[in-house]
Amino acid sequence: MKKGIGYFQVGDKFDSYLLIKQADKAVASNGKAFLTLILGDDTGDIEAKLWDASPADEQRYQADQVIKVQGEVNAFRGRLQLKIQAIRLAEPNDGVHPHDFVKRAPLTKEQLLEELTSFIFEMENPNLQRITRYFLSNYQEDLLAFPAAVRNHHEFVSGLAFHVVSMLRIARELKNLYPEINKDLLYAGIILHDIGKLRELSGASNPSYTIEGKLIGHISIMSDEIAKAARELKIEAEEVMVLQHMILSHHGKGEWGSPKPPLVREAELLHIIDLIDAKMNTLQRVMDKVAPGDFSERIFSMENRSFYKPAFERE
Amino acid sequence: MKKGIGYFQVGDKFDSYLLIKQADKAVASNGKAFLTLILGDDTGDIEAKLWDASPADEQRYQADQVIKVQGEVNAFRGRLQLKIQAIRLAEPNDGVHPHDFVKRAPLTKEQLLEELTSFIFEMENPNLQRITRYFLSNYQEDLLAFPAAVRNHHEFVSGLAFHVVSMLRIARELKNLYPEINKDLLYAGIILHDIGKLRELSGASNPSYTIEGKLIGHISIMSDEIAKAARELKIEAEEVMVLQHMILSHHGKGEWGSPKPPLVREAELLHIIDLIDAKMNTLQRVMDKVAPGDFSERIFSMENRSFYKPAFERE
Amino acid sequence: MKKGIGYFQVGDKFDSYLLIKQADKAVASNGKAFLTLILGDDTGDIEAKLWDASPADEQRYQADQVIKVQGEVNAFRGRLQLKIQAIRLAEPNDGVHPHDFVKRAPLTKEQLLEELTSFIFEMENPNLQRITRYFLSNYQEDLLAFPAAVRNHHEFVSGLAFHVVSMLRIARELKNLYPEINKDLLYAGIILHDIGKLRELSGASNPSYTIEGKLIGHISIMSDEIAKAARELKIEAEEVMVLQHMILSHHGKGEWGSPKPPLVREAELLHIIDLIDAKMNTLQRVMDKVAPGDFSERIFSMENRSFYKPAFERE
Amino acid sequence: MKKGIGYFQVGDKFDSYLLIKQADKAVASNGKAFLTLILGDDTGDIEAKLWDASPADEQRYQADQVIKVQGEVNAFRGRLQLKIQAIRLAEPNDGVHPHDFVKRAPLTKEQLLEELTSFIFEMENPNLQRITRYFLSNYQEDLLAFPAAVRNHHEFVSGLAFHVVSMLRIARELKNLYPEINKDLLYAGIILHDIGKLRELSGASNPSYTIEGKLIGHISIMSDEIAKAARELKIEAEEVMVLQHMILSHHGKGEWGSPKPPLVREAELLHIIDLIDAKMNTLQRVMDKVAPGDFSERIFSMENRSFYKPAFERE
Amino acid sequence: MKKGIGYFQVGDKFDSYLLIKQADKAVASNGKAFLTLILGDDTGDIEAKLWDASPADEQRYQADQVIKVQGEVNAFRGRLQLKIQAIRLAEPNDGVHPHDFVKRAPLTKEQLLEELTSFIFEMENPNLQRITRYFLSNYQEDLLAFPAAVRNHHEFVSGLAFHVVSMLRIARELKNLYPEINKDLLYAGIILHDIGKLRELSGASNPSYTIEGKLIGHISIMSDEIAKAARELKIEAEEVMVLQHMILSHHGKGEWGSPKPPLVREAELLHIIDLIDAKMNTLQRVMDKVAPGDFSERIFSMENRSFYKPAFERE
Amino acid sequence: MKKGIGYFQVGDKFDSYLLIKQADKAVASNGKAFLTLILGDDTGDIEAKLWDASPADEQRYQADQVIKVQGEVNAFRGRLQLKIQAIRLAEPNDGVHPHDFVKRAPLTKEQLLEELTSFIFEMENPNLQRITRYFLSNYQEDLLAFPAAVRNHHEFVSGLAFHVVSMLRIARELKNLYPEINKDLLYAGIILHDIGKLRELSGASNPSYTIEGKLIGHISIMSDEIAKAARELKIEAEEVMVLQHMILSHHGKGEWGSPKPPLVREAELLHIIDLIDAKMNTLQRVMDKVAPGDFSERIFSMENRSFYKPAFERE
Repeated sequence: MKKGIGYFQVGDKFDSYLLIKQADKAVASNGKAFLTLILGDDTGDIEAKLWDASPADEQRYQADQVIKVQGEVNAFRGRLQLKIQAIRLAEPNDGVHPHDFVKRAPLTKEQLLEELTSFIFEMENPNLQRITRYFLSNYQEDLLAFPAAVRNHHEFVSGLAFHVVSMLRIARELKNLYPEINKDLLYAGIILHDIGKLRELSGASNPSYTIEGKLIGHISIMSDEIAKAARELKIEAEEVMVLQHMILSHHGKGEWGSPKPPLVREAELLHIIDLIDAKMNTLQRVMDKVAPGDFSERIFSMENRSFYKPAFERE
Repeated sequence: MKKGIGYFQVGDKFDSYLLIKQADKAVASNGKAFLTLILGDDTGDIEAKLWDASPADEQRYQADQVIKVQGEVNAFRGRLQLKIQAIRLAEPNDGVHPHDFVKRAPLTKEQLLEELTSFIFEMENPNLQRITRYFLSNYQEDLLAFPAAVRNHHEFVSGLAFHVVSMLRIARELKNLYPEINKDLLYAGIILHDIGKLRELSGASNPSYTIEGKLIGHISIMSDEIAKAARELKIEAEEVMVLQHMILSHHGKGEWGSPKPPLVREAELLHIIDLIDAKMNTLQRVMDKVAPGDFSERIFSMENRSFYKPAFERE
Repeated sequence: MKKGIGYFQVGDKFDSYLLIKQADKAVASNGKAFLTLILGDDTGDIEAKLWDASPADEQRYQADQVIKVQGEVNAFRGRLQLKIQAIRLAEPNDGVHPHDFVKRAPLTKEQLLEELTSFIFEMENPNLQRITRYFLSNYQEDLLAFPAAVRNHHEFVSGLAFHVVSMLRIARELKNLYPEINKDLLYAGIILHDIGKLRELSGASNPSYTIEGKLIGHISIMSDEIAKAARELKIEAEEVMVLQHMILSHHGKGEWGSPKPPLVREAELLHIIDLIDAKMNTLQRVMDKVAPGDFSERIFSMENRSFYKPAFERE
Repeated sequence: MKKGIGYFQVGDKFDSYLLIKQADKAVASNGKAFLTLILGDDTGDIEAKLWDASPADEQRYQADQVIKVQGEVNAFRGRLQLKIQAIRLAEPNDGVHPHDFVKRAPLTKEQLLEELTSFIFEMENPNLQRITRYFLSNYQEDLLAFPAAVRNHHEFVSGLAFHVVSMLRIARELKNLYPEINKDLLYAGIILHDIGKLRELSGASNPSYTIEGKLIGHISIMSDEIAKAARELKIEAEEVMVLQHMILSHHGKGEWGSPKPPLVREAELLHIIDLIDAKMNTLQRVMDKVAPGDFSERIFSMENRSFYKPAFERE
Repeated sequence: MKKGIGYFQVGDKFDSYLLIKQADKAVASNGKAFLTLILGDDTGDIEAKLWDASPADEQRYQADQVIKVQGEVNAFRGRLQLKIQAIRLAEPNDGVHPHDFVKRAPLTKEQLLEELTSFIFEMENPNLQRITRYFLSNYQEDLLAFPAAVRNHHEFVSGLAFHVVSMLRIARELKNLYPEINKDLLYAGIILHDIGKLRELSGASNPSYTIEGKLIGHISIMSDEIAKAARELKIEAEEVMVLQHMILSHHGKGEWGSPKPPLVREAELLHIIDLIDAKMNTLQRVMDKVAPGDFSERIFSMENRSFYKPAFERE
Repeated sequence: MKKGIGYFQVGDKFDSYLLIKQADKAVASNGKAFLTLILGDDTGDIEAKLWDASPADEQRYQADQVIKVQGEVNAFRGRLQLKIQAIRLAEPNDGVHPHDFVKRAPLTKEQLLEELTSFIFEMENPNLQRITRYFLSNYQEDLLAFPAAVRNHHEFVSGLAFHVVSMLRIARELKNLYPEINKDLLYAGIILHDIGKLRELSGASNPSYTIEGKLIGHISIMSDEIAKAARELKIEAEEVMVLQHMILSHHGKGEWGSPKPPLVREAELLHIIDLIDAKMNTLQRVMDKVAPGDFSERIFSMENRSFYKPAFERE
């Protein structure tokens, strides 16, 4: 049975550990202070109110602390809330650590790095290979830590690298089915396409958009970076321009942020593979909590559709 | 070297066999009859004028005849034309047959059937498997002969079956990468999604749209057919409804002809896999005739884009 | 003077009978239970809170009970609320019945059936007549009971049949003005166009969308049903296909749910007549509560417009 | 049997009278002059070339002359052309007059005027009635002569008045079905809605757009005219403003030329009734020449759709 | 230091005069009356609650009174609120007047009138000059008092005239750069373009839309007015029509309320100059409260964008 | 009187010098060679056919030669054509030079450079000034020679620099009217905004799009260039990022090629000033050939509108 907080329903009793993700103090209409806590584990979050909070409580229950909590799940204005019945900080011999409560990719950083490296090793075009390797070396740490997005898909630790590895796996299969694909170009485009996010987002955990992210955007940032890398590597071949085109066009059209639509076969593929992996990850996250025979909540990033899980999947 | 008529350029000399695909008589301004011939092989078509055509010529040079022709390729109003210098009907001992001049899938009907059968064999859900098998039995001949479309992609003999097989291969790989996919549902959707085209189009060769195709369309035709098949097979399970939904939604949205958008994970995938294979086939057909460093003609079915073939693919 | 609850304003005193349409229990911040009641008659609904509800109250005041209530109309967050001053269940000798409090068509089921039958009797094409009669026989009970929609227009008992009869009357007049119209085709299309809603919606009262309604939709459901009916009636004429086209195209375009736009004169008419009757009914419902010289609330289903009732209509 | 030139097909022999609608001189590649004639009757037009035209021919065959012509219908670049075998001017005792060759409404001007008058007579609101009567008096002659549009619908003599009368008939029936309609407002709106076209178009026959038509448009022209009429009639009531709104909004939305969308019930109806009559007239003109079982040409003003005439209408 | 209420942040103490812009009574959950006050000066507004309001308070604190208030700025549901600690009505010897608390144009009415007059004086075309002068005379008082819009831009006393004067200044410069501009036509269009707002809006202060404003709109109102003025001035020249076109087209396209797009050079310019001044005024209002290095709130009238104030503007 | 070829109408006789802009050989239906010449001066182009061209003619009449030609202007398929009556090459003592026949900006390169330099001199922010100066130095020659676009506006020698200078003049005036504008940022944005076109287009005369222009585009090219310039100049200030944003956003929105919409006040202004100058230049080019009282041809780049030149401008 799945048992993270993300799977709890109204009426369920909870008695276990959770991480405080956010803690805000406010004053109730009776004049007493209370804390609004966002508690979570790697399956989801829930809000809880700690009423009549003393200054010591305030001091104690802060973000990034793990707590032991007993309570019951209620509904409040259509959202779940945990009614706290007992709460304390986790203690050393509880054997729990904050990082156990954070969602992360199903592969470790080491596994991700190894797989990325092996795809680069497969590449035969030296220009594309050198540029790709340059970025993997220079950005390795962040690339292995960042999420792929603020929300919607791969919004977890190592999400970006996991997204890239998943896309590379699809690319490898499509290359088998359509041999006319230029594998090196496609691999390079996939590995580099979102590296601009390392500057577009503020950090690996709980990221927001940077000023540069808002004014320039990860697409143009990365186009620049490739030009700069090529100058440093003294590569003046057409591959540089085509690779920049891959990056610039990977959102598919102007309305979606790409200054050019894909005009090279592998650029078109990069766009589609990106879509597939983002959609499959989004659906996996959402449908995991839907019972057979039910519809999901509306998914904003997928035209606000509500998806159905067939009842015959029950068996 | 590639040598079909589809690869000839202005100024090239031609001296070989071609199939007459269409022959129309008209009268020139000097009052003499002439024939406009569309000549072709499996790589493309070219127009040719046979001036001062005698009644015997008219009789002789009709559609579906193979001819031996010498001539030179000219440009006329921006399109290629073959200027005929000598022409005769092919003779028995020339050893050429009309069906050698028709484009067809890279797999034979036998290979296609075998591969389709093996995918159905993989299916575990008996309802989905029985319905799929019902259509393969009932429509086998047409399914193996029809093109997938009138133009744009897979517009050749066995194009529909080849399109289906290519999609199934992609599906199998995606199932490996995303194990939460319901393989049976996806396979069934892929195999059945375009069978309505067997009634939407007028025939396997040189097809046009039927009245039913224009008024009802292959999507609604097939939804009906599935309902009917289920009644005949006495299957009353939810699979029937979900399979109908797969068919109804496979064009993705209302503007593209689907009365419902995909609302089931596998329906979304069916739509994307259909897109990938159609695009890859279109690009393969178009880019094959483009030299490295050049742009293709505009491709209407792909938002009128003109694609670039990188010069570095030359080596 | 109009006196249903739908016409009450802030400050009005109410002292009469209402039907409980919905009753939900909740717990107030003081820890006591209260009931949120949706009370209504055939002119509208109003919310009321029954504070400090005892278990007996909970037992007593349930959906579908008629109550006698005294109170005053207040505003709460921009919506009207009935502040309950006295409440009791209706008693036998009060002489009131739940079904008096439900909005229904201005014609009885018998009148509707008679009028439908007479239109079918007018039809001369035997194929169209037999198919139409088939559905009237097989779905008579539901057809006479269902609303035409969940909200917006004809959202009352017998709404669907009343909508159909109104459309038939318009059709008869247009046939007089434009004799080239094929009356039989148009009548058949009108009578059948929304019968798929009997499966799209969950029931005659307080309907919601069924899973089949969401995944297949009333348009495709009915196209199927016509094909099936024709098979049962052993009709293989073109009328079947054209009638299916009428159904498939009656929403006018892809964005509005029709997989084909109207491509037959009577299909175009069916779409327009459907629009007229839906709009006139919507406006009638909304403008009825607007005073001359005022604007209505915004009407979502009519591009969110707010309609004006001319002051000179005051007399 | 229908026998106007509009019904002739390739290969048909023609031997009758036609009106020269346009005559243009040009010089052929052999240096000789020829005339391009547009010949027509009330069913349609056809182009014809008069080769080797002498100066006398040029003088003789001019626009608005009736000719007797023998010839055969050919196709030239996809359009029909009449190959002239013999031609002469009509003579007095042929008993034919130019105005017999011009398409006109099925009602005479007298009938149209009488019917318009009787609708105005039905009106009860004196302000609306007086304004309407004002325009009928002041613009009677043009109103009875102009077409309703340059092309697409009611593009014939008296087309505007016939369009108005047809719309009034629909309005009368809808008033019976929906008694809440304000008949006077709707009638007034219908009668006046297109009177601005008398200034937007250059004349009753062969009209083009005036400068005022292009810069101001019939909608704003007529809104002005109503304001002016009211001032002359010293009417200062709300009816004037609401009537202006009817005119301003009758194209339905901004993209279609209306500065305001319909915000009054009768304005919405005016827009829909206008649509119905325009569409029915367009379809009647187009479908009249289509054989049962065939599709029409594409109709630009109806989203470029090609309409089907059911084969079962054949009997 | 800027010190109007519009610049206060959470935590700031306030102790000064404010104007009561709106005062509404309501009853709290404890059964006691309270007042919701909107308090403001020429830099902005803030909400305040006066709890336990006595009937005397109700009487005292009404719209358009100036008060002296002490309090602290809090946040409530994301919006600022002034927590009242002390409040009293302003007294005569406080030396404050309501009109000091209202935002107004940076030029006085006299200055605005003088500048308008001088632009009209520059005009050389007598027809355009006379029509423009006619409106300035007839509408002088309102024109100098009204805002240019209900919100977004120039939403202050004399905003309309200030908007016009700013546009005229731009026009004068563009005329210098592009001498082919017809200055008279452009000046006339600018001065008249929004005069219809004097009837579209209900008054100079705190305006709402009139019925005429909603049903006819300032664009059509003004087109009428120009026609009427020309008749009164007995001007029958083309200038009238072109000036009407300028007004009708100044919103640029149908979707934005113009029944005709600009079709005259100066009409196109009028539209653009209107946009520039509206945008510059909007940005000036919004960015004034943004610190260097920060983003503004989202600006609805500018496609909901959030603008950045560069940090390097700090110095 | 204006007398360039661009002002000639059907029937006009021509007898003067023209530049051969293009010369193509073809074979007529009579088997003889002919030349299709595009002849032009600084007011426009016209096509001419040189029939029965000898090999010597072919040799003689090539692009970039000036000829003396006599002929008459005809219409052919709706376009003007010059019927050649006599033709010869210009001779040295005719005193004509090819570059007299090419359209160029109304300012000389020296004047343009001087004005650009003076605007840069006005700048006070050293970072912005140094970056701007860097580009003026490095690209001076091309910047002073290139057109601003392939067609539509400023499509002449020095068009780009003239466009920039015109925009700077507008900017200076707007700065006077709206003092809150950051002049340095706006000037820098204007001067640099289209420098990417020096790589997007193939050259100063008769330019086409380069591969880099199609795949990357002048917007992204220039964003890169600024990043590179800043690195070379060792400027690491925020100005670099904001300047890149100006370039990236200057087309206004995604659909028009900008990966980011303007999010800084001066970026919004840059976009609008660019529009104004492009539109004014387009209109000036088009309206110059339209007589008062006439409409222009449709202008594709301005939503296909046809503009009216008022008749009252005649005087």
